[in-house]
Amino acid sequence: MADAPQSQTALPTVADVDAAAARLAGVALRTPLISSPVLDAAVGARVFLKAETLQRTGSFKFRGAYNKLSTIPAERRANGVVAYSSGNHAQGVAHAAQLLGMPAVIVMPSDAPRAKRERTAALGAEVVLYDRDREDRAAIARAIAEKRGAVLVPPFDDPLVIAGQGTAGREIAEDLAARGLTPDVAVVGASGGGLIAGIALAITARFPNVKFYSAEPEGFDDTARSFRSGQRETNARMSGTICDALMTNTPGVITFEINRRLVGEGVSASDDEVGRAVAFAFRELKLVVEPGGAIGLAALLAGKLDVKGKVVVGVLSGGNIDAALFHRLVA
Amino acid sequence: MADAPQSQTALPTVADVDAAAARLAGVALRTPLISSPVLDAAVGARVFLKAETLQRTGSFKFRGAYNKLSTIPAERRANGVVAYSSGNHAQGVAHAAQLLGMPAVIVMPSDAPRAKRERTAALGAEVVLYDRDREDRAAIARAIAEKRGAVLVPPFDDPLVIAGQGTAGREIAEDLAARGLTPDVAVVGASGGGLIAGIALAITARFPNVKFYSAEPEGFDDTARSFRSGQRETNARMSGTICDALMTNTPGVITFEINRRLVGEGVSASDDEVGRAVAFAFRELKLVVEPGGAIGLAALLAGKLDVKGKVVVGVLSGGNIDAALFHRLVA
Repeated sequence: MADAPQSQTALPTVADVDAAAARLAGVALRTPLISSPVLDAAVGARVFLKAETLQRTGSFKFRGAYNKLSTIPAERRANGVVAYSSGNHAQGVAHAAQLLGMPAVIVMPSDAPRAKRERTAALGAEVVLYDRDREDRAAIARAIAEKRGAVLVPPFDDPLVIAGQGTAGREIAEDLAARGLTPDVAVVGASGGGLIAGIALAITARFPNVKFYSAEPEGFDDTARSFRSGQRETNARMSGTICDALMTNTPGVITFEINRRLVGEGVSASDDEVGRAVAFAFRELKLVVEPGGAIGLAALLAGKLDVKGKVVVGVLSGGNIDAALFHRLVA
Repeated sequence: MADAPQSQTALPTVADVDAAAARLAGVALRTPLISSPVLDAAVGARVFLKAETLQRTGSFKFRGAYNKLSTIPAERRANGVVAYSSGNHAQGVAHAAQLLGMPAVIVMPSDAPRAKRERTAALGAEVVLYDRDREDRAAIARAIAEKRGAVLVPPFDDPLVIAGQGTAGREIAEDLAARGLTPDVAVVGASGGGLIAGIALAITARFPNVKFYSAEPEGFDDTARSFRSGQRETNARMSGTICDALMTNTPGVITFEINRRLVGEGVSASDDEVGRAVAFAFRELKLVVEPGGAIGLAALLAGKLDVKGKVVVGVLSGGNIDAALFHRLVA
């Protein structure tokens, strides 16, 4: 079933991204925008990758979580927060709560990578497991939130979460401008669509002519199909890709409203193509990227986009991967 | 046997580092200075790591090689260059030669990691193998250079090579200054000592009170012992550490002259400690670091330095590691 939006439905604006950047200053890391001559040669373009793998908790999710939590009024903080997540949002919320001194409960699928479960617990959160194929994580999280008086932190369909993720795009735009570059194309992974919505908001505000693409795993391309049909489509499957971070089965209401206007087109990549991108990042970029975090790079390396000679922006959105899977993909 | 210095013996200065920076501008990548709250907590200090793993060819060696090669007069370039190297210098020289349109011969130990041999050949160089325990790589390289009229590019004991490596330190100093930070301690791996000499030149010019330490594998601590005795000591062994990049058996003449004045003290780390640092970089920093490139991080994580509460600079100097060894260390 689709996850219903959990928060106010006003669309976030660039001003919200700017406000998020002010809240995150000195807390979130300003991650580097990476370039590599080997990557440029492989893609046939000038490629700049935002290494959110190097962000606190190993993914961009900390940005949105911290932005959301830091707006919770003082009198509500003791009741804590609740979130449901396949893993990276869990760590982002847990760490943001830890920094702000709030208790956190994370509802997590029982098949999430062990590394993600353990790390969430290590960040001080209480982990509640559910069955991805049989239970409704949103309903579980809502019940816990009601019982405890806690604030539910949606993984993507929330203006503050989207604005927080947008700070990554704001930094990309600043760094490109500092180098005198204008991006032609941007490709960003989409699950619920919060990251790409925030980044599209921030980058198109400064560079209105950049062409955005969403990137998704094959068989989990609800965002691309939604662009084509004009309404929020769902995926047939709830599991079955190595991209464990990209299995949300339909775009958010708010994120889709932003993305259909600022993105409008999507590509997909197979698990094999994603695995090759993870291996490329190991061998050539010396970066540890999890499958879901490599989806945009996979699309670029597989030639899914017309980028020859262009200035291209991508995001390596997460690096939380078990050693065993990493080895299988890079060996 | 010790490798004799191959080039002019005048000591490089900060002006030489500045000149190298001008030659490398727009060619070498300006690599990020990474920080990580998890690392800071583990070390008990504010740690900043220069990620030269992300440099062209996966290590800092490109800097020195390109600086050296770009000063070769036009009329000599057709005769090419020769270098001897355990791997990273090989790739740096091969790629610099490739960019400058010069032929390159690389004399490489037959037990160098396959990834390093293959990548050197892929960069257009001719690879000549030798036996690390029985043959004199410097003599082999000199003979080839004489026969072809080629320029020999020493791995470390050369003012232009040292100045080139120093550009990494120049960038560290600039980035720290931009953040309003003054470093207290710097720890940099030492093999022949070119990287630490160049970095010490550049950083102490801007921050004269920073305390420098060399870091070496246990049993290959010729630099630290040389500091203590006041003369260039040699290692008993020529092989037998996972840090294949750090097996040079004595400091260079030029590098020791610089390092005994600007560094003066060294620490060492065991292979186990280095392996744990490689695993930490995978799990917590999401960076691929080879053993030799993690020696400074290993010393920090193992508590070999008194850095509590201080601002500490380190260098992740290379990331060229076979998938099999990487997996063995991180699993």
